[in-house]
Amino acid sequence: MTLITNQRVPVTFLCLALLSPAHRARADEGMWLYNNPPRTSLREKYGFELTDTWLDDLQLASVRCGGASAEFVSEEGLVLSNHHVGSRSLQRLSTKEHNYLRDGFYARTRAEEKPCPGQELTVLLSIEDVTARVNAAVRPDLPDEAAFQARRAVMAAIEKESLDKTGLQSEVVTLYQGGQYHLYRYKKYTDVRLVFAPEEQIAFYGGDPDNFEYPRFDVDICLFRAYENGQPARVKHYLRWSASGAAENELVFVSGHPGHTDRLQTMAELASVRDVEYPLSLRRLKRTEVLLTAYAARSEENARRARNDLFSVRNSRKARDGALAGLLNPKLVGSLVTAEQQLRSNVAANPTLAGTEGAWDRIAQAQKIIDGQTVNYDVLERASGFNSILFNYARELLRAAEERPKPDGERLEEYRESARASFEFRLLAEQPVYADLETLKLADSLTRFVEALGYNHPLVQTVLGGKSPGERAAEAVRGSKLASSAIRRNLYGGGQQAIAQAGDSMIDLARLVEADARAVRKVVEAQREAIRQAHAQIGTARYAIEGPSRYPDATSTLRLAFGVVKGYEEDDRQVPFETTFAGLYERATEQKSRPPFDLPERWSAGKNRLDLATPFNFVCTADIIGGNSGSPVVNRKGELVGVIFDGNIQSLVADFIYTEEKARAVAVHSSAIIEALRKVYDAGPLADELLGTRRQAN
Amino acid sequence: MTLITNQRVPVTFLCLALLSPAHRARADEGMWLYNNPPRTSLREKYGFELTDTWLDDLQLASVRCGGASAEFVSEEGLVLSNHHVGSRSLQRLSTKEHNYLRDGFYARTRAEEKPCPGQELTVLLSIEDVTARVNAAVRPDLPDEAAFQARRAVMAAIEKESLDKTGLQSEVVTLYQGGQYHLYRYKKYTDVRLVFAPEEQIAFYGGDPDNFEYPRFDVDICLFRAYENGQPARVKHYLRWSASGAAENELVFVSGHPGHTDRLQTMAELASVRDVEYPLSLRRLKRTEVLLTAYAARSEENARRARNDLFSVRNSRKARDGALAGLLNPKLVGSLVTAEQQLRSNVAANPTLAGTEGAWDRIAQAQKIIDGQTVNYDVLERASGFNSILFNYARELLRAAEERPKPDGERLEEYRESARASFEFRLLAEQPVYADLETLKLADSLTRFVEALGYNHPLVQTVLGGKSPGERAAEAVRGSKLASSAIRRNLYGGGQQAIAQAGDSMIDLARLVEADARAVRKVVEAQREAIRQAHAQIGTARYAIEGPSRYPDATSTLRLAFGVVKGYEEDDRQVPFETTFAGLYERATEQKSRPPFDLPERWSAGKNRLDLATPFNFVCTADIIGGNSGSPVVNRKGELVGVIFDGNIQSLVADFIYTEEKARAVAVHSSAIIEALRKVYDAGPLADELLGTRRQAN
Repeated sequence: MTLITNQRVPVTFLCLALLSPAHRARADEGMWLYNNPPRTSLREKYGFELTDTWLDDLQLASVRCGGASAEFVSEEGLVLSNHHVGSRSLQRLSTKEHNYLRDGFYARTRAEEKPCPGQELTVLLSIEDVTARVNAAVRPDLPDEAAFQARRAVMAAIEKESLDKTGLQSEVVTLYQGGQYHLYRYKKYTDVRLVFAPEEQIAFYGGDPDNFEYPRFDVDICLFRAYENGQPARVKHYLRWSASGAAENELVFVSGHPGHTDRLQTMAELASVRDVEYPLSLRRLKRTEVLLTAYAARSEENARRARNDLFSVRNSRKARDGALAGLLNPKLVGSLVTAEQQLRSNVAANPTLAGTEGAWDRIAQAQKIIDGQTVNYDVLERASGFNSILFNYARELLRAAEERPKPDGERLEEYRESARASFEFRLLAEQPVYADLETLKLADSLTRFVEALGYNHPLVQTVLGGKSPGERAAEAVRGSKLASSAIRRNLYGGGQQAIAQAGDSMIDLARLVEADARAVRKVVEAQREAIRQAHAQIGTARYAIEGPSRYPDATSTLRLAFGVVKGYEEDDRQVPFETTFAGLYERATEQKSRPPFDLPERWSAGKNRLDLATPFNFVCTADIIGGNSGSPVVNRKGELVGVIFDGNIQSLVADFIYTEEKARAVAVHSSAIIEALRKVYDAGPLADELLGTRRQAN
Repeated sequence: MTLITNQRVPVTFLCLALLSPAHRARADEGMWLYNNPPRTSLREKYGFELTDTWLDDLQLASVRCGGASAEFVSEEGLVLSNHHVGSRSLQRLSTKEHNYLRDGFYARTRAEEKPCPGQELTVLLSIEDVTARVNAAVRPDLPDEAAFQARRAVMAAIEKESLDKTGLQSEVVTLYQGGQYHLYRYKKYTDVRLVFAPEEQIAFYGGDPDNFEYPRFDVDICLFRAYENGQPARVKHYLRWSASGAAENELVFVSGHPGHTDRLQTMAELASVRDVEYPLSLRRLKRTEVLLTAYAARSEENARRARNDLFSVRNSRKARDGALAGLLNPKLVGSLVTAEQQLRSNVAANPTLAGTEGAWDRIAQAQKIIDGQTVNYDVLERASGFNSILFNYARELLRAAEERPKPDGERLEEYRESARASFEFRLLAEQPVYADLETLKLADSLTRFVEALGYNHPLVQTVLGGKSPGERAAEAVRGSKLASSAIRRNLYGGGQQAIAQAGDSMIDLARLVEADARAVRKVVEAQREAIRQAHAQIGTARYAIEGPSRYPDATSTLRLAFGVVKGYEEDDRQVPFETTFAGLYERATEQKSRPPFDLPERWSAGKNRLDLATPFNFVCTADIIGGNSGSPVVNRKGELVGVIFDGNIQSLVADFIYTEEKARAVAVHSSAIIEALRKVYDAGPLADELLGTRRQAN
């Protein structure tokens, strides 16, 4: 299976593909590991000497926040991230009466700072290479399933030892698709309070139409404060605020948690992404988008309830549509095809790499088996056929009860001891559950489940139990008490017996699909292990041929990227590197303030107070992807000059290839934040805290 | 294959299924043929004597308008239909400067009435049963493909003869899935002018959320005038306006053109609708809805350009989601399963029907073959992989050139002589074509085409030609001149040679897929013929067993339905049969005038002038479905009391079963039209013309 058949790859793109690794490194490419930073590139291209102190300061000021990024910005534990990262907390704190997501929030005193249930922040303290120990535990002659079990067991053991020894959250991270294993240790904050958020209208100005576009005018920020023992956390490592902010052509760095990339995937794996994974997820996303849009249109309260789900679905849909367009672009993909062919010939020509040649075919075979299971895996194990908060609780309770009694290394990995504290924190956190929305989502996803497996499939008939998807969903939601955190706590504490006797309709539903879900997971896990082993071989070969110039694919863990602040050309016009406040008002006028281009009241009223020349958003060439939202942009001095919140439309191919001609990361300019806090939100003390002048100012 | 496996059918629904045909007829069910009207039911249930004169008057005042319905309402050719039926014309007449769809239109003088390009109206003049002649031409021993060709040839010949003899548009209609063939002759109006339309905001008040819902507050009307020889058509048969309008519990009739139902389908066919057809079309609809919604959100002008497509996609999506929910409701479907089982046992027990027993299996086999082709048929022959106005023109030109030289009976049926005038009228009518929207739709549908056939399919590679779907779409739109009506006329006139030398990129694209599209069509047509023959056998058997109590499935041809004006119970509350103007203003207040619940300026300003007790919309039990939009609702005296524009959400199962407990047809009340014309639109003369008092008033 290849991505291109009978097709010429244009010469210009062949050149790109044939660039030597050394040449490649000269691009501003890479999501670099903190324990293997791009010192040489930075020295050679920018004359910048990356010192250990500089790197340590940035690492320890960087924060992981759910699946995204954030940073400490004051010594009193103030944490800066994006509005769209904080939106889950804003949604949970909101009620029909107080819609903080829509209207914004500002705590004028410490007492007003609002605790955010389920919001955890972590800071990476150390990295340790444990590749040798992991591989030693997995004998090369083991069949795939046994190999997977052995690997899971040793990883759980390493994490548990680390947790017991240090008390720190410990995770073994799989890098280079299985080429390396590193142990990451984190400090954790679980008392996180909301300090400030602007109105969604300005945080996400331009809405879906402007999402992933540039120029932009978004105050996409949110400020939390980490607490310890009931007091604001005293943090030693936090980012100083740059007086001037990002300037054109300046070298900048981005420190954050890119979620997932596919750049080291083989062509067989990318073909599967193109033909199987993306089409399937786009169908699900578009279906859900239509469902939630229709629900939200029915009333203001519906719109409030669905808002966060809807944002997330639209955001993923637009990103994935863009990435799929990239995978269907023969010019872009041609360069990857050629590079793989090149590597495979080099491997074949190298007698010391005998045996590696077959790795690509082994991956292709395993991927084919996974592809055959993708729909079932998606519907059953990823539970896309059971789209409901209550169902997720039900499954977690059911599985926790079943897994906890097992030895740590034999459990499904999300139930291992090292992940326990975070699991419980999330499971027991309060969150609003709306029966109408739950029923709607579950009914629609059950319909999808029927479609996926076929109406006459025995499991479908068992699940429906003689009812329509709509009736079945209503019954399951009505008969469940899992919306109550207290009830979840009781059931969780009661273990298997409590779950067996719960008499909860959603747990009963989860139980019906449990065996099938586990069965498909088992098949997929074994094939993924086969793929990991083959990738480990390819990685070794690549290292032997290309040297250590590669960074691993993104894994939701801390990475360092770098680039320069600069504009780009699009449709024969030059897109400037930054926008200004003046541009915001021009855009609103040009769009006749038609939603989502309308301005919040405060911004209409406050126009005269603002310095309209203030920089608003800016772009840079740093290599980012989903998960980098909220990442700090810092200058050579390590000062904060902006906060990443998006990539432009040309960057949507970044999942599988970095390009720097037009692809850009988009950030809120540090000056915009200060100007808005002072003049729009009357939040001078907060601006002072960011600038480090708070004590003097108060 | 059955719809239900291992499942009990509740007793109450079994009863429904086991009702005798005579009992069934007592429901207000049926989309009756004008040459086989429900005289007995009306006499027995309502004491109403259906006379030939009454029937003729209604038939000749009923108008077919595109895929929907309308009626003559003045002797000077005034035609009433829905705003959402006229919206295609409103869209075509609109420009960036004059948005009649959004803002409404009123021609205060005849001179201001706006010609509507491509808008054709037809009136059914006569019906003739030609079943014997059609069947005689199709020898029972012919293989399916030859049988299909023979049937196509005889139908084309009958139509051509009729056209030559009468000069009237002539269509042979397939009824009872192939049980009967009737020749319909129509008078045609091709000079149709726009007289009046309200603002979309009030025509479609409540938008997608309220679509297919009740209570409603929609002035969903549009008035055209038919012209002949440059003068308003003088029509003898038109509907008189009722002075009082529809009243509760009144017997009413609906005369219109229901598009399609599946009530006589076998369970195998319905299973295919449920498992194959609906899921596929819902995927396409939701995908397109997301695409167009995102496009429309980018600017006011985009919203205007996409508006009609978007309405149509949302409308179909909501209807189909509702119908699929019905097919997944075992209670509803159980009654159909039981009825089929009953009929099959009766057939098996009757020696005179030997040979018919196998008909169900033959249908199931043929349906299975069709199902295997459904994706290809949809993408290639229905051209859902090439969603573009220009592509449709290209294909029509290409096919017309190829088909015209063939003998009439051997052509693809849409190119037969009897359909030629209407074909040319549509092909050559002016309509705006927006390159950006064309490119967007084509790029997205090409992506769907790739997904459907697989990236490595030779046809996919040929079509893409080494480009991405986006590039390929842009290239095809850029290189086509088919947006010009003059160019289409030249190419059409020039025949095969002109098409071969056109050098038009869209014709080149259409040519690339032509062979594959025709191939899949051929397979499907042969199987459909097999299904027709089997249905003819079942129909004969049903007639022998049940007598002549059945009406055929809807076929976009004129039908008579009847029912009573009455409310229903929903969620333990009584939904009244009608709404009032007062209710409109209450709904706007309750929704804080949030779009789509905002009122047009004229309606806000005009509130004080209106009699708020005026009836607005009302419901009745008449049996309708998509295509009935714009149908007149008339009383016993044949006077117009309302115009159908929707069904409620409970009626969405009407595709395959009629229910009268909660399912209702929704109409605009005749009094609302007069009140709005006089007091909101200052259109007294138009109201007078409707009331037949114009001459006196002027």
